[in-house]
Amino acid sequence: MSTETLKDLLIDELKDLYHAEKQLVKALPKMAKAALDENLKAGLTRHLEETKEHVSRLERVFALLDEPVKAKVCPAMKGLIEEGSEALEEKEKSAVRDAQIIGSAQRIEHYEIAAYGTIRSLAETLGETKIAKIFQTTLDEEGAADKALTAAAAAVNQAALEE
Amino acid sequence: MSTETLKDLLIDELKDLYHAEKQLVKALPKMAKAALDENLKAGLTRHLEETKEHVSRLERVFALLDEPVKAKVCPAMKGLIEEGSEALEEKEKSAVRDAQIIGSAQRIEHYEIAAYGTIRSLAETLGETKIAKIFQTTLDEEGAADKALTAAAAAVNQAALEE
Repeated sequence: MSTETLKDLLIDELKDLYHAEKQLVKALPKMAKAALDENLKAGLTRHLEETKEHVSRLERVFALLDEPVKAKVCPAMKGLIEEGSEALEEKEKSAVRDAQIIGSAQRIEHYEIAAYGTIRSLAETLGETKIAKIFQTTLDEEGAADKALTAAAAAVNQAALEE
Repeated sequence: MSTETLKDLLIDELKDLYHAEKQLVKALPKMAKAALDENLKAGLTRHLEETKEHVSRLERVFALLDEPVKAKVCPAMKGLIEEGSEALEEKEKSAVRDAQIIGSAQRIEHYEIAAYGTIRSLAETLGETKIAKIFQTTLDEEGAADKALTAAAAAVNQAALEE
């Protein structure tokens, strides 16, 4: 892959995010299933619906740029998602494990916050105002999802202390 | 590794962050060397000095908890750091590559923001006020480093457009 121009870089970041969001659609149900706390479970399930919409938005951006829809594997994000799902299946449900799920989920959210922040700035610089707005909408939702996880952590950590 | 209690989880997160920060001490000079933009280069170099201090603070926390200083490899963070340094060495300096460096560096910063946010909350819940404050200090510096990268991106992206 060559990233000679700013537009190449934007397309490269787009493929990276497309892979990330598609992986997350598979991982979130596992994380929700593994959660003991009902509020955490509901939050992860709600974010799954948003994440499916994020995938559709990325497909819309590929179309707006006249680019074929394509994913690019980012080993870091793949690792983050694997840590956040598969590794958790083996253990029993507990508040401590919920705290661990939240830690993984917030790392994933922050990866996305960084990546959408980068790609939105690239789109703005390239004069792709419509595309920049699409990314901003998703960025706002990722930020809200991260805040919801912080709120869930307060109750979960307290429960874990009393376990 | 067993994470039966909230304190086990805190120590696990501590080892993860210790590995991350030590890796970052090695990666930041490579990223700074690869940067074309002087402001970006200076920012990365400044953050290297902060990162060395973050390593010392983590060592202080190990001591406060009476735990041996130990790193735990997190494949996701390892991947993020590798992408941000080694991969960049092969190519010529350019503003587009600077934009790529910023994208990688902000993903790394956000990993740390998520991880320090998690561990600070764990320390607070466990009543480890002094340790929570140490983490908060680092968290504030990671946030500032991320903001400085966003500021650097404005000039870099504009230069990349004109390349």
